[in-house]
Amino acid sequence: MTISSAVQDDIWASVQRLAEAFAVDAVEREQAGGNAKRQRDMLRESGLLTLLIPERYGGGGETWSTVLRIVRELAKVDGSLAHLYGYHFLQLVAPHLVGTPEQKRYFYTESAKHNWFWGNAFNPLDQRLRGNREDGRVVLNGRKSFCTGAQDSDRLLVSWVEGDDPAALYTAVIPTRREGVLVHDDWDGLGQRQTDSGTVEFQDVVVEPHEIIAVPLANKSPFSTIDAPLSQMILANIFAGSATGALEAAKEYTRTQSRPWYTSGVNAAHRDPYTLRKYGDMWVELQGATSLLDAAGHSIDAAWEKEFSLTSDERGRVAVHTAAANALASKVALNVTSQVFEVMGAHSATKNHGFDRFWRNVRTHTLHNPIDYKFKNIGNWYVNDEPPKPGWYA
Amino acid sequence: MTISSAVQDDIWASVQRLAEAFAVDAVEREQAGGNAKRQRDMLRESGLLTLLIPERYGGGGETWSTVLRIVRELAKVDGSLAHLYGYHFLQLVAPHLVGTPEQKRYFYTESAKHNWFWGNAFNPLDQRLRGNREDGRVVLNGRKSFCTGAQDSDRLLVSWVEGDDPAALYTAVIPTRREGVLVHDDWDGLGQRQTDSGTVEFQDVVVEPHEIIAVPLANKSPFSTIDAPLSQMILANIFAGSATGALEAAKEYTRTQSRPWYTSGVNAAHRDPYTLRKYGDMWVELQGATSLLDAAGHSIDAAWEKEFSLTSDERGRVAVHTAAANALASKVALNVTSQVFEVMGAHSATKNHGFDRFWRNVRTHTLHNPIDYKFKNIGNWYVNDEPPKPGWYA
Amino acid sequence: MTISSAVQDDIWASVQRLAEAFAVDAVEREQAGGNAKRQRDMLRESGLLTLLIPERYGGGGETWSTVLRIVRELAKVDGSLAHLYGYHFLQLVAPHLVGTPEQKRYFYTESAKHNWFWGNAFNPLDQRLRGNREDGRVVLNGRKSFCTGAQDSDRLLVSWVEGDDPAALYTAVIPTRREGVLVHDDWDGLGQRQTDSGTVEFQDVVVEPHEIIAVPLANKSPFSTIDAPLSQMILANIFAGSATGALEAAKEYTRTQSRPWYTSGVNAAHRDPYTLRKYGDMWVELQGATSLLDAAGHSIDAAWEKEFSLTSDERGRVAVHTAAANALASKVALNVTSQVFEVMGAHSATKNHGFDRFWRNVRTHTLHNPIDYKFKNIGNWYVNDEPPKPGWYA
Amino acid sequence: MTISSAVQDDIWASVQRLAEAFAVDAVEREQAGGNAKRQRDMLRESGLLTLLIPERYGGGGETWSTVLRIVRELAKVDGSLAHLYGYHFLQLVAPHLVGTPEQKRYFYTESAKHNWFWGNAFNPLDQRLRGNREDGRVVLNGRKSFCTGAQDSDRLLVSWVEGDDPAALYTAVIPTRREGVLVHDDWDGLGQRQTDSGTVEFQDVVVEPHEIIAVPLANKSPFSTIDAPLSQMILANIFAGSATGALEAAKEYTRTQSRPWYTSGVNAAHRDPYTLRKYGDMWVELQGATSLLDAAGHSIDAAWEKEFSLTSDERGRVAVHTAAANALASKVALNVTSQVFEVMGAHSATKNHGFDRFWRNVRTHTLHNPIDYKFKNIGNWYVNDEPPKPGWYA
Repeated sequence: MTISSAVQDDIWASVQRLAEAFAVDAVEREQAGGNAKRQRDMLRESGLLTLLIPERYGGGGETWSTVLRIVRELAKVDGSLAHLYGYHFLQLVAPHLVGTPEQKRYFYTESAKHNWFWGNAFNPLDQRLRGNREDGRVVLNGRKSFCTGAQDSDRLLVSWVEGDDPAALYTAVIPTRREGVLVHDDWDGLGQRQTDSGTVEFQDVVVEPHEIIAVPLANKSPFSTIDAPLSQMILANIFAGSATGALEAAKEYTRTQSRPWYTSGVNAAHRDPYTLRKYGDMWVELQGATSLLDAAGHSIDAAWEKEFSLTSDERGRVAVHTAAANALASKVALNVTSQVFEVMGAHSATKNHGFDRFWRNVRTHTLHNPIDYKFKNIGNWYVNDEPPKPGWYA
Repeated sequence: MTISSAVQDDIWASVQRLAEAFAVDAVEREQAGGNAKRQRDMLRESGLLTLLIPERYGGGGETWSTVLRIVRELAKVDGSLAHLYGYHFLQLVAPHLVGTPEQKRYFYTESAKHNWFWGNAFNPLDQRLRGNREDGRVVLNGRKSFCTGAQDSDRLLVSWVEGDDPAALYTAVIPTRREGVLVHDDWDGLGQRQTDSGTVEFQDVVVEPHEIIAVPLANKSPFSTIDAPLSQMILANIFAGSATGALEAAKEYTRTQSRPWYTSGVNAAHRDPYTLRKYGDMWVELQGATSLLDAAGHSIDAAWEKEFSLTSDERGRVAVHTAAANALASKVALNVTSQVFEVMGAHSATKNHGFDRFWRNVRTHTLHNPIDYKFKNIGNWYVNDEPPKPGWYA
Repeated sequence: MTISSAVQDDIWASVQRLAEAFAVDAVEREQAGGNAKRQRDMLRESGLLTLLIPERYGGGGETWSTVLRIVRELAKVDGSLAHLYGYHFLQLVAPHLVGTPEQKRYFYTESAKHNWFWGNAFNPLDQRLRGNREDGRVVLNGRKSFCTGAQDSDRLLVSWVEGDDPAALYTAVIPTRREGVLVHDDWDGLGQRQTDSGTVEFQDVVVEPHEIIAVPLANKSPFSTIDAPLSQMILANIFAGSATGALEAAKEYTRTQSRPWYTSGVNAAHRDPYTLRKYGDMWVELQGATSLLDAAGHSIDAAWEKEFSLTSDERGRVAVHTAAANALASKVALNVTSQVFEVMGAHSATKNHGFDRFWRNVRTHTLHNPIDYKFKNIGNWYVNDEPPKPGWYA
Repeated sequence: MTISSAVQDDIWASVQRLAEAFAVDAVEREQAGGNAKRQRDMLRESGLLTLLIPERYGGGGETWSTVLRIVRELAKVDGSLAHLYGYHFLQLVAPHLVGTPEQKRYFYTESAKHNWFWGNAFNPLDQRLRGNREDGRVVLNGRKSFCTGAQDSDRLLVSWVEGDDPAALYTAVIPTRREGVLVHDDWDGLGQRQTDSGTVEFQDVVVEPHEIIAVPLANKSPFSTIDAPLSQMILANIFAGSATGALEAAKEYTRTQSRPWYTSGVNAAHRDPYTLRKYGDMWVELQGATSLLDAAGHSIDAAWEKEFSLTSDERGRVAVHTAAANALASKVALNVTSQVFEVMGAHSATKNHGFDRFWRNVRTHTLHNPIDYKFKNIGNWYVNDEPPKPGWYA
């Protein structure tokens, strides 16, 4: 009921080991913020960074469902690491989605071989990074914000504009350690504090022609725009995982530390009828959210298998399904991560316990794109049979 | 995304034909109440009444998932017929659950052969029906309330008490037309108005020994008590189906009859940004509820296959999973069936449109057992690892 | 705490007598619908129809707060009668708001003298009623929908269009019994069933020049547009009153008829911890709504006293305050009137109890104007300092 | 509409000056935590610490309504200072409530004269502080938790147990600087971080007989137990003030820093229809909560005036009214302080903005006593006519 049988036992065991290791100092690290170098290296060593890469390119050949299920599990103890892990794959598949077959093969193979950890400097809403053509190469100058996972990464997915059209984005993959790339340690998020989602600065950074995987296009294939639903699903699983983690932490606290309310007539907090009712209510909400996530995960797998034969209409349905899963997980996770305090009691609300990190993580991350516009897109599809226009967030 | 692929095409086509036929006069029949004789006969003629009976006994050999999916689909147009259809199976499997192997075989076979439609006079909370032993037979006198489906049924699942212990229930299956059985047409429900959930009176009704399928037991097998989760699932699918039906009816109305609000700046109601947002929100809530229902349906199937090897702990998990699905469907269906008016506008709120029947159906039916006690049971399982005590409603 | 001290004892006693009389057959009348002739006559005989008319014109000289408090009290037992009573005053003050000083004096005086009961054929969104000028008089032909209180009324507030501009409304007061006025008994609302909010047809109905109180104006005085806030307040008090009535009816039922849930461990339904919690929650919500209504009532009184010296900005604040009160009362009343069934239990959900009338009344009436546009207007005022544009609903 | 006219202009001006001064470094101080010495001294210098003391004892003779209104206003910028200010009066009136007339006179007079700032070491649920009788004096040893305002206070309200009955509390007022009193700087709250709600340790602290204001009593006067409703009201006004502050901070941010969503079609964030709708919704919820607070404030004033003539039943109604105000303010404040991020957007969720302090303050503080038991008490009063049993929190 709570563990997806879809994930192989040995993989799941690795995930559990990681989760346990992350949990040891999750509260302290979260409060400190900054780069989680040691935990990132554990991810590297776990072998889980190549999971999604097709077997013929040296990877694990696993599905997106499996990746998403792992993201959710890691988020129970550490939303930042879960984010870094999920977004790693979002960048890693970019050559597959928008590059040439040769680029797809090349980047999958090299990434599997060198066990690359991918980050990004991609934020399409930030158009301060500009490229100039010089001798057939592009030279980048400027900066990007919200560059999740850039710090300590091996490869960087970069986007920039060249001419006057701010929507005309070019995309490339470059080594993070290339000359002129400055990854600033300036992420000051309220939550998701170890995602290194700060600024990357570019000073005369050279991009070689073969590194450019996408140029502005009028007509993208529906499959090429599946990154927005993928991103929605990664986030949604972090929301649900965070809420599940909050609920489990609360359970432990209620069972071992909470005191019964003095007028309750029960002799243990975990026998209080109102406390049990609230646990039941929260758990039920979470089951709805995770069931929808699981179902949407299968939609993603089906779309991924269709690859470039995916139609526009099918892509629309996946976009709606994943947006729905994201929106529901947002709502439920915000409720649960705030309400858990009510089943723990007044003593639980101290900084050293760190129980607020779940809410801060979810609150910060659910702002990524406005829920009302997701509802509008979904409503428009339901009422008017119009699929969401492919975009960065739909 | 909205149609479960689990249901075979030919069955689904029959279901669709029934749904269309029920829809023709659903509003009028609902307002009139009383017995839906013609529609019940359509169900008889559809062949769908034997769907769940194992093939070796002459039935369709389908799963509970399939039955529940059909219940949900029928509820989109007619909550009462959906209820009668689902509860038919709940009574029909009673000999399987609590009878002898011979009784199981006998009632499955006969039901398949004669295409019986089952009803009940079972309500365990109403202990006014009493039995007296006379010459090895039992003679029943008294009455039962909430006897859903008794009217026009072929077989009746009956429960009674004999001695002083009101919890010591005996159960039998008898022909509804047996002498002394008076099925009153006194159901006055606010909703689910054609379920004939009125009173059945018994005047010296004789029950033969071989008709008695259960006597009060200290230790029932976990599988024998799976009827409570089954009942929860039937109801839950009616809730979700009703809400889906309300949303679809609203969509049709918004697209064809609603007028744009005079300050909205849009020229059609189905372009109003707030209306679309609300549709999206409602649709998302419904996806969460139906995804959980689908998942819980698979839990039911798995438990059903284990039959008498089902452990107490496994039974507890199924009970929790189905209670969760029921509770979530309750909440979502109450919200959606009330909110749909807001996306249709003031002119939709007339008696002749009958859009309130969805809310009345759900409001009436969700009172069947209190949601707070469901949450408490679930919470207690989650926090204290204690499965719900098997009972009539858990 | 529950009775406003602002209402004089003798008036309050009359109100209580009316409420008791209305309660006797409220359920039956609600289900029958149609004109509540006997109850309307009781209102006439109570003397309460002249309450708001200034003393110098022969009336009671009471405040709008008092009228609104009475509307709320009547709505506890009968939402329709409360509506008719409140809207009576809305029509009655029209000459004061938009007419000449002479018209104000004339209609107040005559209404007090003849104890007129006012209705309307005013719906500004229905532009099917047209006027033609003939010999200095206007001849009306066409129809109006949603004509609350027209049936059995003595005077009718009428609006029509003359030329091509559908927004250019003329307004007059005419005797309801004038030749050519046909009040149809065709109101088929889901709720508020005895408000006679059906169609009024006009066949060559003559309007005399002195009966015309308003012609289309570019610049109305802020005070002249206070009818929209007044209307919002009348409705809001009906919502809150209906919810209070539902809660009181539930209390009576829980105390006398509900049975304790069989696993609750308590011996009376009114001792169930979850039931008490839910009562507390609903009552608290209602206190928030009624406290805001009381405060907004005082805003209305203050604006009414300022009369034509009311500034545009002050009018805007009153419009926001009353819209807020209306929106909150809507939300709370929808919740409470639906949730009360949960504290009564399954047996309460029958047609003969009629407990659903509270929800149907509120559900129907809250559709009068969309809550989202109210929130938008309020938000725009709060964020951008822009008062709502005076209109029919803001 | 947002400023209570009940507070005198000169007092209000002082409050505004304080609020402005507190606002300057509110974010930094909140993150640092610890004692707000400078701001506490500003409160001392403002003259507002004697506001509630009757004029005949040298105080301002103001009402509790006024104090509560000020608490709410200060909470808009600094929940901790608001808490310290409100709780100062809760301790200050203890001799009035439970002491002798002479003690009442003495402590009011001395407090006015010396401009004392009161704190407490009172937490009745923590029974680790014990007293022993020695030579007619009491010697205290042990510790108390949650000692809000003890640090830097002039007088301390202390409670302890002496014999075996943990409910038999003695109460005294002592100088905070008395020998043996150790106020620890160990408050680590998630919110309300400058309330110094840490531990006070007592090492052989002597309490003189005349300092003892209360001994364990079987029958307290209803007025003597009005401290629980007072405490509920102080907290509730902090909740509402915090939410109002969050909304105002959000408004400023939306107007000046938020960017319009890229698919919104509007050119400024403060023109986004969904953003405006959400502002309207939040503002309306807050109006309901504050209107109820204002009304409950008047109930408190009325009860305060009745003093020892307050009946048990009247005390019960005040307890219910204030519990309702507290519960509603809790719910609304939790919603608003979390939702404000949605009207500001992703960039607002950084630590340096500090917008999360509003939620952390409310989340921490609303755990003071469980909302479900408040609802239960209120429900029990509403359904069963039983006033809440006077206690530390009801």
